[in-house]
Amino acid sequence: MKKLQIAAIQTHPEFGAVDRNIDTALGFVPQGCDLAVLPELFSTGYQFTSRAEALGFAENLTADQPGPTGARLAQFAGDTGTTVVAGLAEVCGDTLYNSAVLVRPDGSRGLYRKVHLYYDEKSLFAPGDLGFPVFAACGTTIGLMICFDWIFPEAARSLAFGGAEIICHPSNLLLPWCQAAMVTRSQENMVAIVTSNRIGTENRTGTPLAFSGRSQIVSRMGDRLAAKAKDDTGAAVATLEIFEKDKLFTPRNDLWGDRRPDMYRRDPAPDQA
Amino acid sequence: MKKLQIAAIQTHPEFGAVDRNIDTALGFVPQGCDLAVLPELFSTGYQFTSRAEALGFAENLTADQPGPTGARLAQFAGDTGTTVVAGLAEVCGDTLYNSAVLVRPDGSRGLYRKVHLYYDEKSLFAPGDLGFPVFAACGTTIGLMICFDWIFPEAARSLAFGGAEIICHPSNLLLPWCQAAMVTRSQENMVAIVTSNRIGTENRTGTPLAFSGRSQIVSRMGDRLAAKAKDDTGAAVATLEIFEKDKLFTPRNDLWGDRRPDMYRRDPAPDQA
Repeated sequence: MKKLQIAAIQTHPEFGAVDRNIDTALGFVPQGCDLAVLPELFSTGYQFTSRAEALGFAENLTADQPGPTGARLAQFAGDTGTTVVAGLAEVCGDTLYNSAVLVRPDGSRGLYRKVHLYYDEKSLFAPGDLGFPVFAACGTTIGLMICFDWIFPEAARSLAFGGAEIICHPSNLLLPWCQAAMVTRSQENMVAIVTSNRIGTENRTGTPLAFSGRSQIVSRMGDRLAAKAKDDTGAAVATLEIFEKDKLFTPRNDLWGDRRPDMYRRDPAPDQA
Repeated sequence: MKKLQIAAIQTHPEFGAVDRNIDTALGFVPQGCDLAVLPELFSTGYQFTSRAEALGFAENLTADQPGPTGARLAQFAGDTGTTVVAGLAEVCGDTLYNSAVLVRPDGSRGLYRKVHLYYDEKSLFAPGDLGFPVFAACGTTIGLMICFDWIFPEAARSLAFGGAEIICHPSNLLLPWCQAAMVTRSQENMVAIVTSNRIGTENRTGTPLAFSGRSQIVSRMGDRLAAKAKDDTGAAVATLEIFEKDKLFTPRNDLWGDRRPDMYRRDPAPDQA
């Protein structure tokens, strides 16, 4: 049985204080952990006042040199041996994405671009165009999703169908329901899920936002192994047992084998769309 | 705004005491309610010792005369004006199903056959072959699913994609997680869900079973409007506001319009199956 030490990092970023936010977040990562997950847009803060402002912070994560946040994450992963997942603003050509990057200790990267944008993010970011890729890391398979992806069952399911055994879920959650929903997402897919959220408030546009904390690590059977409170910062740490391609929810219920694809509607009926 | 009075009926059936179980369950339905949902296998009890025993109780729900339970439900619906949904063992030809029936006051019926069988049900019942049909009833659209269907997100989603505004969910729940999961199912699909469960224990095969109660009515936004305890019987009653084809979870997030079908994996990757 493979075991991995996992940390969900919960932060209170100051908008625009990129270096300080990175220092604080990485400072919370426990020594010797295998995988650390940081929140969505962890180095910048969330509430950009314009697309131009967000572009000023965005990094080119497909370039050899991935920008200041990407470089710091690679340095940290290389120095510590910890694989790091973090959310940040990405620019590719002229297009801005709300992205998450997985950085391995050898410096190689995996990239996810948020597929389901929440509310006013639609005015800033393009919807992700990479689907739900999964990455070999930490001796297992890891999938990434971001924040509001939680409400679409197809997001976590796509990652699990692709072979993810752990889902890393950088978030800036405003609504109160995701943390409970991720227990269900874990169970229905038999994947562990690490949700890293931020705390604090932002009000840069006249629309005040309060983030809900409660970062958590949930096992593939839906056990909440570790969690932060709604208002503190630091790391929730747990040891995850990694199972490979085992979907036996009961001795007679293989959740993949029991699926009945011919019985399912795949999309809204035409008169429902 | 259409409003419907809904009852989730929670019972403690005695195995095999069909008439008494029907009397008790229907006796809990409040006068004047629009829709009452009874548990899975509500009139017989759950733990059949053999397929032959289950066949002895099963009713032909596609016949004009639907058997004693079906006849009582039709009589009750006609007498009271309440649409009734209930779970019972169905025989069709030589095939036995774990089914749920919707009975309208005019005597017409809708039928669902449990698609995802739990554990030893696989030794008794054939898996359902009708998909996830939806039915016009109570002036809206109603879908049926049964118990363990809860863990497959495709079940509730298929019903919602088909236009269901209310999902009726007769259950004999043993595991403790479904009641929380149905909050997520409600939110991700923006449908109300009525889960009717039983209480008590059965031990007819040497495998003791304890049923978890906590029947509930959850709104399309995930609010638990009414619930029973884990160990009492009776009705959980709530008034549901019915919205038609409205999937706006936030003013800028239409949960149908925001779906990105091209980004999803629909089934496990071949090496994951």
